[in-house]
Amino acid sequence: MSVHPPIPQVREAVARALAEDLTPLGDLTSSLLPPDLEATVDVVPRKAGVLAGRLCAAVTFEQIDPAIVVEWHADDGDDLSAGAAIATATGPLPSILTAERTALNFLGHLSGIATLTRRFVEAAAPAKVWDTRKTTPGLRALEKAAVRAGGGVNHRGNLTDWVLLKDNHIALFGITEAVRRARVMWPARTVEVECDTIDQLQEAIEAGADLAMLDNMSPDDVRKCVALAERRILLEVSGGITIENVRGYGDTGVDLISTGSITNSAPVLDIGLDVRGQV
Amino acid sequence: MSVHPPIPQVREAVARALAEDLTPLGDLTSSLLPPDLEATVDVVPRKAGVLAGRLCAAVTFEQIDPAIVVEWHADDGDDLSAGAAIATATGPLPSILTAERTALNFLGHLSGIATLTRRFVEAAAPAKVWDTRKTTPGLRALEKAAVRAGGGVNHRGNLTDWVLLKDNHIALFGITEAVRRARVMWPARTVEVECDTIDQLQEAIEAGADLAMLDNMSPDDVRKCVALAERRILLEVSGGITIENVRGYGDTGVDLISTGSITNSAPVLDIGLDVRGQV
Amino acid sequence: MSVHPPIPQVREAVARALAEDLTPLGDLTSSLLPPDLEATVDVVPRKAGVLAGRLCAAVTFEQIDPAIVVEWHADDGDDLSAGAAIATATGPLPSILTAERTALNFLGHLSGIATLTRRFVEAAAPAKVWDTRKTTPGLRALEKAAVRAGGGVNHRGNLTDWVLLKDNHIALFGITEAVRRARVMWPARTVEVECDTIDQLQEAIEAGADLAMLDNMSPDDVRKCVALAERRILLEVSGGITIENVRGYGDTGVDLISTGSITNSAPVLDIGLDVRGQV
Amino acid sequence: MSVHPPIPQVREAVARALAEDLTPLGDLTSSLLPPDLEATVDVVPRKAGVLAGRLCAAVTFEQIDPAIVVEWHADDGDDLSAGAAIATATGPLPSILTAERTALNFLGHLSGIATLTRRFVEAAAPAKVWDTRKTTPGLRALEKAAVRAGGGVNHRGNLTDWVLLKDNHIALFGITEAVRRARVMWPARTVEVECDTIDQLQEAIEAGADLAMLDNMSPDDVRKCVALAERRILLEVSGGITIENVRGYGDTGVDLISTGSITNSAPVLDIGLDVRGQV
Amino acid sequence: MSVHPPIPQVREAVARALAEDLTPLGDLTSSLLPPDLEATVDVVPRKAGVLAGRLCAAVTFEQIDPAIVVEWHADDGDDLSAGAAIATATGPLPSILTAERTALNFLGHLSGIATLTRRFVEAAAPAKVWDTRKTTPGLRALEKAAVRAGGGVNHRGNLTDWVLLKDNHIALFGITEAVRRARVMWPARTVEVECDTIDQLQEAIEAGADLAMLDNMSPDDVRKCVALAERRILLEVSGGITIENVRGYGDTGVDLISTGSITNSAPVLDIGLDVRGQV
Amino acid sequence: MSVHPPIPQVREAVARALAEDLTPLGDLTSSLLPPDLEATVDVVPRKAGVLAGRLCAAVTFEQIDPAIVVEWHADDGDDLSAGAAIATATGPLPSILTAERTALNFLGHLSGIATLTRRFVEAAAPAKVWDTRKTTPGLRALEKAAVRAGGGVNHRGNLTDWVLLKDNHIALFGITEAVRRARVMWPARTVEVECDTIDQLQEAIEAGADLAMLDNMSPDDVRKCVALAERRILLEVSGGITIENVRGYGDTGVDLISTGSITNSAPVLDIGLDVRGQV
Repeated sequence: MSVHPPIPQVREAVARALAEDLTPLGDLTSSLLPPDLEATVDVVPRKAGVLAGRLCAAVTFEQIDPAIVVEWHADDGDDLSAGAAIATATGPLPSILTAERTALNFLGHLSGIATLTRRFVEAAAPAKVWDTRKTTPGLRALEKAAVRAGGGVNHRGNLTDWVLLKDNHIALFGITEAVRRARVMWPARTVEVECDTIDQLQEAIEAGADLAMLDNMSPDDVRKCVALAERRILLEVSGGITIENVRGYGDTGVDLISTGSITNSAPVLDIGLDVRGQV
Repeated sequence: MSVHPPIPQVREAVARALAEDLTPLGDLTSSLLPPDLEATVDVVPRKAGVLAGRLCAAVTFEQIDPAIVVEWHADDGDDLSAGAAIATATGPLPSILTAERTALNFLGHLSGIATLTRRFVEAAAPAKVWDTRKTTPGLRALEKAAVRAGGGVNHRGNLTDWVLLKDNHIALFGITEAVRRARVMWPARTVEVECDTIDQLQEAIEAGADLAMLDNMSPDDVRKCVALAERRILLEVSGGITIENVRGYGDTGVDLISTGSITNSAPVLDIGLDVRGQV
Repeated sequence: MSVHPPIPQVREAVARALAEDLTPLGDLTSSLLPPDLEATVDVVPRKAGVLAGRLCAAVTFEQIDPAIVVEWHADDGDDLSAGAAIATATGPLPSILTAERTALNFLGHLSGIATLTRRFVEAAAPAKVWDTRKTTPGLRALEKAAVRAGGGVNHRGNLTDWVLLKDNHIALFGITEAVRRARVMWPARTVEVECDTIDQLQEAIEAGADLAMLDNMSPDDVRKCVALAERRILLEVSGGITIENVRGYGDTGVDLISTGSITNSAPVLDIGLDVRGQV
Repeated sequence: MSVHPPIPQVREAVARALAEDLTPLGDLTSSLLPPDLEATVDVVPRKAGVLAGRLCAAVTFEQIDPAIVVEWHADDGDDLSAGAAIATATGPLPSILTAERTALNFLGHLSGIATLTRRFVEAAAPAKVWDTRKTTPGLRALEKAAVRAGGGVNHRGNLTDWVLLKDNHIALFGITEAVRRARVMWPARTVEVECDTIDQLQEAIEAGADLAMLDNMSPDDVRKCVALAERRILLEVSGGITIENVRGYGDTGVDLISTGSITNSAPVLDIGLDVRGQV
Repeated sequence: MSVHPPIPQVREAVARALAEDLTPLGDLTSSLLPPDLEATVDVVPRKAGVLAGRLCAAVTFEQIDPAIVVEWHADDGDDLSAGAAIATATGPLPSILTAERTALNFLGHLSGIATLTRRFVEAAAPAKVWDTRKTTPGLRALEKAAVRAGGGVNHRGNLTDWVLLKDNHIALFGITEAVRRARVMWPARTVEVECDTIDQLQEAIEAGADLAMLDNMSPDDVRKCVALAERRILLEVSGGITIENVRGYGDTGVDLISTGSITNSAPVLDIGLDVRGQV
Repeated sequence: MSVHPPIPQVREAVARALAEDLTPLGDLTSSLLPPDLEATVDVVPRKAGVLAGRLCAAVTFEQIDPAIVVEWHADDGDDLSAGAAIATATGPLPSILTAERTALNFLGHLSGIATLTRRFVEAAAPAKVWDTRKTTPGLRALEKAAVRAGGGVNHRGNLTDWVLLKDNHIALFGITEAVRRARVMWPARTVEVECDTIDQLQEAIEAGADLAMLDNMSPDDVRKCVALAERRILLEVSGGITIENVRGYGDTGVDLISTGSITNSAPVLDIGLDVRGQV
């Protein structure tokens, strides 16, 4: 359940994607085939990775033609081996081909996110990997689910989730007063403070913030923050995290490492569709 | 004009992106600031690249608050230098901060595509770089415009643009008959044939196809195809194109080189927003 | 049939409600449960009332998870006893809990309207109870159906249903001329005239209006109007109607008594969901 | 397959049509009938013609009430005889009557297009009949499918399909340069040139255009163009085509004859619904 | 005011029409022009007729490019002479050309309806011309406004407007009882009864119906109905009305003559766009 | 800022409300007035209360006719006196009347919520008043903003905001384990535990929950909980809160008192529109 996006958002995203691919005349090429030509196809990753987007692909086939029956061999979050089928679909070939690219675009994009997330997750342990709001516009629900499929966890879903105090607020009010105001206006919500220095962290802890974002600090500085914090506040490392340097932060004792790259820069996972019995 | 996406699609994509970021309570953090606090901010690339997405960002600020006035210093397709402002916005700071992430997500994602496209374009010359239908679901109009901003050209916009005969059709009808059927059903439309061998190319030419997709061929094989074709058909190289190997295809005499990677695997261009006068 | 809202409007209202409750990350709490945990739950009113909104609740469960099977024990318009189940649903518990609040919000809001309407209907007899256009924005189709479930009848559905001449028109044209113009421009449509005095009623009858809205009159004045009208025109009492004073109007001989309060001020009917086997 | 519009567009068009017919109170008249009154009805053309819109009608019944079972006796593109049923539907009579007008509006409008197209197709042979972008706003996907059902073929689906150079471009650049620019910017796309004179046609052919639109020429002039072209370019006759004069163009040797009248001026095909067993 | 459709419906219809014409790549042909090329164009009817759709055209230009300034020389309902400009637009030529076809499709379709309506109106006088629910799916608000522009009046807007008792209800309940039930369930609403015979009309009058639809009667029979009715009920002639036979009904004394043909079979009014200064 | 809902949600809610009031024929009654009749109107509360919904009303007038100029005399959250104008609008009277009911429905419904919230806020002090997810389906963003206007604070915006562990989770895992799982899966998020007994509260505190919902406890029991908690956890009183009994909980030392009644049972605040100069 947790690895899938909410179903209403999936239905809407699929309808939108199909509309953009079929406006206004539908699939010219498939129209040349006999409409009742049946086929069985396999959805196959060309490279190893982590699956995400199964629900989107399933809804794509269903919206195009309920006569397509899909059997799934893997679920979101599962490891995929190159060449081992994720799913097998049987039904009218023209319908399957019409749905193909949209279904693969969802699977490839979301599995790409899950796969890159998994790499960060493994490198960052024991720290956890957090996503950000740096997602593709309009696809946040799907991409954040893909992060979960990859073993990452979700930072703020959007601007209404929690309070994140940055330089503007600190310049205006100071950390202590800004946290106080946040608690008054939005009680029981997570309050996070962006900290550029260890002094700011000290103030954030005393102000009772839940979470500190350690921005662009070196692993050594992070270690000092961890020592200072003594578990009184959650610590997030953020800024300039790469697959190369993430390991250096993972064992500093920090709780969470966030990176926009898993959602806004993940290369697609190459997944294709093979028609059975085709030479 | 050519580098911008159609405005109706922009308005809809922005409305969708803002809804997902603001449902249901709006921007908690900005609500802590005085609503009439004015500020001037610069939109600044952290790295060099090519701009795309200006219209999306402009509409984002406008939909959040018409009181935000944006002056643009660059347009889609322009080269960006790290640190040189793309735009300057003045208006209520809470509104600007509410719009910030959505505007930057559009700019970063689309400029990332334009920037990667530009690299392929420069490496592939004199061949042209073509995109594919391997786009992020729901954002095709925007991403294909970003490809144009990067100097690439657009392959099929969607399934209704032209006929692309692949192995299924060829297995069923043979190339000659498949092309003939396409001409009957969809006269005056581009008919493209996927060719795995030089014999298939020969048949496609004789069948009068407009365009042949040379699938997963080596540069040497492509050269043979070019020699065979003698400009009687447009030639597209496709499959497994990377920034490393694209140069090897560019001077084979082929017309077009297509790659899904410019739309489905382009890393974001890092673009930020700096509030003026902030310490 | 008559007590249910049109199904297209129901589907759209439910999709909208689910989107606002699940954007962008879905149901965090349900994600902690095993996805295949089955349960049976009862939908139970905590107080007596009249049911409305069954179709909305059914569509809510269906849109979240078609695996939820709902058996209904009552239909819109039925009397509900506190504690007696309206419906029993069986299926995956996480899905049921995700749908719970949205389904109950529909049932509670609409049954609240039906229940209050029923009270007015009983107090107003033999006059009938009419609703108004004072409905919750975006939910008119559902709320007007709930009024029917409560035994009320529907006044104008919206501005395109019939002509209602108020002070502006009367000041400009006089009643006679205003009715004449309405008949010319919108023949065969109901023409209603707001009357503040018995003289206006006299003029409305002579002008051939179908319906007179007696605005803010005392029961005694209404009785005079009834006597004057001699069934040549339908008479509606409107303005300041409460559950306390409605009885005083009901036996004046007036045809209809309208009140916005049944749609815009009905308290919710408290309906809950009980998981079977839970201690 | 080819004769049907894409299913996502059908679902959306039907939902829109039902909403406009049922907002806000639903079907008042059907509400007077017993909701469980079963009936069998036949959908019957009052005149001979060609069927189109079956999918729209099927989805209309389905969206109103899945309990309505429809058996189809004809498919899009089939010849219809006056009085011979197209479909038989069985289910709750109130639901059938609620869906009736919307289903018939789709069938009548789209079959009207298919029927008129068929007349042009028969008169124009051996030339083919092409539609245009002169369609009813918002219904292009459906109307262009109806043209295919009538035996016509589809010209540009929309502005993104191909390049059509008209007087503005020719005045600005000349034909040769305009075609060259189109080829650079939109390679592999169909490039069409509007030609008012035989000299313009000569230039279009030499410039390598794919298609020439012979605008408002007499059959004799068209014949001269055909002779000049020698099959080096597709030739489209356009402008002022009527069912009376189309035959005169059909045997000139031209490839295609386009007319907006088949989509924007086709009278409805009269199709009704008969309830069985009704006196 | 009365001749224009409601503005929210106009905005939505235009957005939909533009989306279908510009998905996914926008206007290829206009992209070849310099984006800042200014022009002045005239919107000119090629034939005489009656204008409708001005608001739709205005919103089309505005949604494409607010820089286009349109001056209108006529409003909906005005008589148009062939060749006399309806409007003059000035702005960027590429934007104007992108909007052209959509704007003209609205103007042509809706003016076609207004023009045909006007012909019926003139032939039917002193009876009035009524439209029906036989409209193009999804465009009813626009088409019914065009009928008003042509001088016609609007019958039921949709199924929720009034009660229309047809053979099913009469077979089930009889006219008297059916009218009584309608009055109980939907008080103050127009109740119409379809009458095939003069006996049915007699019963409808006695039952107190507001309106009788005289279905497929000859002018002589209609005259008898008029004599019988003595103005106690509104009389509508319906079924098989054509521009040829409508005059025969107009002077029978009947109130209203309805025909679906004005909305579902009106040929387009040919309206074009002329760029000034073009050779 | 904080008291207003997000503007994208406002625009969408207004468009939906206008569509339901104007489909398909627009405002019949206003169509009888001269379209250019200018007027000035005042929006006036009939009773004292607290304003909410200003943005919705402003957008309603703007969407109907940009020629309507509205001057506002109060903002959301302001106290309103009976009879003192909230706003003054000047423009075409037919447009103002068309917008009237929709604008008033928003103002009345949302101000009703703000007004009732204010009463709870004053009675509950020093405890704060929290809303719930018991909102009208589809209007949560607007209603939660109205709660803020009334001085209340917002509990969870929706299911994705935070984790709320209820009896199902406790029965399955126990409080300690359930909290632990929530922390692992959704780090940094608020975790709330529903507690029926003081023992459960003790366990919730030890498990490190952020917030405890004290369900259906008496004020005395709440006081015991406050004493036990010693500020280590936020305490929310929930269940059965009324305007009568809320004062008894307010001075127990509890932090927050939540009630669904402020959003799902608030009677409308009666607000009307007066045309100036009308007798």
